[in-house]
Amino acid sequence: MPPSASTSPRSAATLPQGFIEALAAVCGERTLIQDPSGMQRFLVEERRLFTSTTQVVVAPISTEETARIVAVCAQWGVPVVAQGGNTGLVGGAVAGSGEVLLSLSRMNSIVAVDAENYTITVEAGCILADVQKAAKEAGRYFPLSLGAEGSCTIGGNIASNAGGIGVLKYGNTRELTLGLEVVLPDGRIWNGMRPLYKDNTGYSLKNLFIGSEGSLGIVTRAALKLFPAHNQRRTAFCALNSPRDALALLALARQRSGDSVTAFELMSRFSLEIVDTYTAENDPFAQAHPWYALIEFSTPRSGSDLEALFDTFAEEAFEAGLIIDAIVAQSLDQGLRLVALRESVPDAQKKAGGSIKHDVSVPVSKVPDLIEKASAAVLELIPDARICAFGHVGDGNVHFNVTQPEGADKQEFLALWDTVNAAVYAVVTRLGGSISAEHGIGLLKVHEIADYRDPVEGELMRAVKFAFDPNGIMNPGKLIAV
Amino acid sequence: MPPSASTSPRSAATLPQGFIEALAAVCGERTLIQDPSGMQRFLVEERRLFTSTTQVVVAPISTEETARIVAVCAQWGVPVVAQGGNTGLVGGAVAGSGEVLLSLSRMNSIVAVDAENYTITVEAGCILADVQKAAKEAGRYFPLSLGAEGSCTIGGNIASNAGGIGVLKYGNTRELTLGLEVVLPDGRIWNGMRPLYKDNTGYSLKNLFIGSEGSLGIVTRAALKLFPAHNQRRTAFCALNSPRDALALLALARQRSGDSVTAFELMSRFSLEIVDTYTAENDPFAQAHPWYALIEFSTPRSGSDLEALFDTFAEEAFEAGLIIDAIVAQSLDQGLRLVALRESVPDAQKKAGGSIKHDVSVPVSKVPDLIEKASAAVLELIPDARICAFGHVGDGNVHFNVTQPEGADKQEFLALWDTVNAAVYAVVTRLGGSISAEHGIGLLKVHEIADYRDPVEGELMRAVKFAFDPNGIMNPGKLIAV
Repeated sequence: MPPSASTSPRSAATLPQGFIEALAAVCGERTLIQDPSGMQRFLVEERRLFTSTTQVVVAPISTEETARIVAVCAQWGVPVVAQGGNTGLVGGAVAGSGEVLLSLSRMNSIVAVDAENYTITVEAGCILADVQKAAKEAGRYFPLSLGAEGSCTIGGNIASNAGGIGVLKYGNTRELTLGLEVVLPDGRIWNGMRPLYKDNTGYSLKNLFIGSEGSLGIVTRAALKLFPAHNQRRTAFCALNSPRDALALLALARQRSGDSVTAFELMSRFSLEIVDTYTAENDPFAQAHPWYALIEFSTPRSGSDLEALFDTFAEEAFEAGLIIDAIVAQSLDQGLRLVALRESVPDAQKKAGGSIKHDVSVPVSKVPDLIEKASAAVLELIPDARICAFGHVGDGNVHFNVTQPEGADKQEFLALWDTVNAAVYAVVTRLGGSISAEHGIGLLKVHEIADYRDPVEGELMRAVKFAFDPNGIMNPGKLIAV
Repeated sequence: MPPSASTSPRSAATLPQGFIEALAAVCGERTLIQDPSGMQRFLVEERRLFTSTTQVVVAPISTEETARIVAVCAQWGVPVVAQGGNTGLVGGAVAGSGEVLLSLSRMNSIVAVDAENYTITVEAGCILADVQKAAKEAGRYFPLSLGAEGSCTIGGNIASNAGGIGVLKYGNTRELTLGLEVVLPDGRIWNGMRPLYKDNTGYSLKNLFIGSEGSLGIVTRAALKLFPAHNQRRTAFCALNSPRDALALLALARQRSGDSVTAFELMSRFSLEIVDTYTAENDPFAQAHPWYALIEFSTPRSGSDLEALFDTFAEEAFEAGLIIDAIVAQSLDQGLRLVALRESVPDAQKKAGGSIKHDVSVPVSKVPDLIEKASAAVLELIPDARICAFGHVGDGNVHFNVTQPEGADKQEFLALWDTVNAAVYAVVTRLGGSISAEHGIGLLKVHEIADYRDPVEGELMRAVKFAFDPNGIMNPGKLIAV
């Protein structure tokens, strides 16, 4: 069974009498939202697997207001669920009827850009695309990039340690974050906003909050790393024979490009097929090929040497049989169209029927094994299932999604959810991988993770949770079952 | 006053009766060291500020043996101090008379190199230079590089989140670490060795242990990131007018090199002068200049384009007056001699008299302010003190060291330790910096840090310490006063 609202947190069914009034007393006029139409956009999440049943949304405009709200929640023992752009895929920002949903959406300012220090300071509710834009305007580059960038917030990216397509070169959100300001579970504020590249003054609290899915505190501000802006880019969409060839191609690209590979995305034939069928994008090749890779080289170097560098790489790859055909973008706009092929996969999947998805990672060298063995395991269960594997091969993260057989009954297919999960996760585990690469745990995987997590690790995590949030009011029931 | 043995941890003055026998019962024959000559090399640390007074050193050969030893220590309530290569600069690996010193020096194997996954797995006692070498033999590059690399261990680097000269491009040890195995304070083993680039399955425990100076557990193994090997390098030693010019030069280098700046080290005239006077290295210029920068460009690209790239950068820098003279290495060997100028500073300082040192960082854009204002503050206290400022400008980390006036009495000068510290740290704090950039806290700064740490931050850190080590047996008295 796919998870549903019935697996939502089981906090008290309603808010205690008098609580809303207490909350209203510390909130600005527009902060407290209770009318159904105003609340609507905060309640239904991306994949529609969960629905918030909260009676109250608060959208504070400052760290201080956030702190006051959390302090009231702490006094009343009412759980608080932080939400950024509400684009998460694991139900991490879903609030039950006895919980408060706290949206950071109104705290969306760029606070400062320091081009010389290569840093930017932002409020947590800043839209990712706005951060990218502010960096660009200062002649710098903020490399975090993912499908939801037009609506997800940097606070959500931090809470979930978002990955995306730039990880190979620039790391996850974690590696891009220098400092944080966090409202703690008792309403105090931790100021960890030092925009420093080196700071060894104790435990890395920052890294505890990053990826904690709002279960230890609420991120209200962040200082982020910037990089030199790119002056040259080369984007290509290549046809390949196999994931194993993709691996060899990646190794060659990293070596020949001077480590300028800024994206290396794998797509199966099926994933391109559904993009071609269900979206505005079209298969750019005249014939079908078994696999594809979207490859991007970028560099801050001025001049025009990247083209020659790319051509040399591509020639060598053709000669070695690693590429069987390729479209190389001749303009920025063409490049964006090639990128759109990859970014349209999630949308295409929605239209191709029911999906059982797996956001998994393995050591990069094991990606071919993962695809081969997980496909075999799934096809043994559902012989005509359609494997929609794609993702960030350069960092070992494959979205190993399974689309229902053509014409099959969607509900019947989705009833196999747990069985398919178990089969795929068994392969991942054997290969030393992770069952949650970049989307996080949220509600979706909170019970499953217990089966795959080393018990010692689970105990340490519960100890951390208890040390920070002894009353369990920060996003309970997500990330870790306590 | 400089800190001394009197500020060592005040655990019980002696080990409890019967404890050594209990320890011996779980140790292999050569693991337990009690004879003074065998113990000697573990007891005296780099800067000779502290001396261990422990009665017993253990040097286990496996994770399991380490775990058995820690379990015995936990049962008896005897603190355990982990030590790597004993090259730390803050007394973090000093053991008192009632404590056990646990050296990882015999656990020094390279476990596996996975070139395709760009990872290496090593035991904690591996010498850093051996990790670099193993990477190189596999056609890969491990970028952590610092003065002590011939004797420091990777476990010590992880425990102290070591920085060094490659941080600008590759990050600190933290950013290079994918997975850890840790012996916990009760003797259990946490296996967090997943060599994955993306893994969002809960709190980042790994990042808590990194930089924890052995106060939460003992790192026994690590999985580390590798990078493509460099095929071209360009090293230059440049004369400059000011730290402000250094900043502009760095910005230009990052932009023109295609982000291939792998080192950018600043040196004051005084720091080169003492290298020239007291070490085998000589000032390469015919005349004195106020400031110097050691600049290195490296790239995994094959071919020979880096030379032209560097020349264009250098020409532009000359024309803008950012460089006033330069020596560009014409061979690998010449490059190493230029690097030696910078790496000889600590040695030269030892010979130039007493030093009061400050391993501090500020936002990169504030480095000139830091040097200017901290120099003024120190010279107001000691008008003929000699400022030995040098360091990693690219990441904002300046070693702002103060050498005694020529011919002054060393003890009289060192008596000003606290006063000078306070003056420098006040400037650092005003500039939003950190009083411990890369060397850590250890014993040296454990009391000072309390004055500079936000009280909320201190409380959170104590909560973490208590959650992991409720009986306080892991390296007590270092990093955090509890």
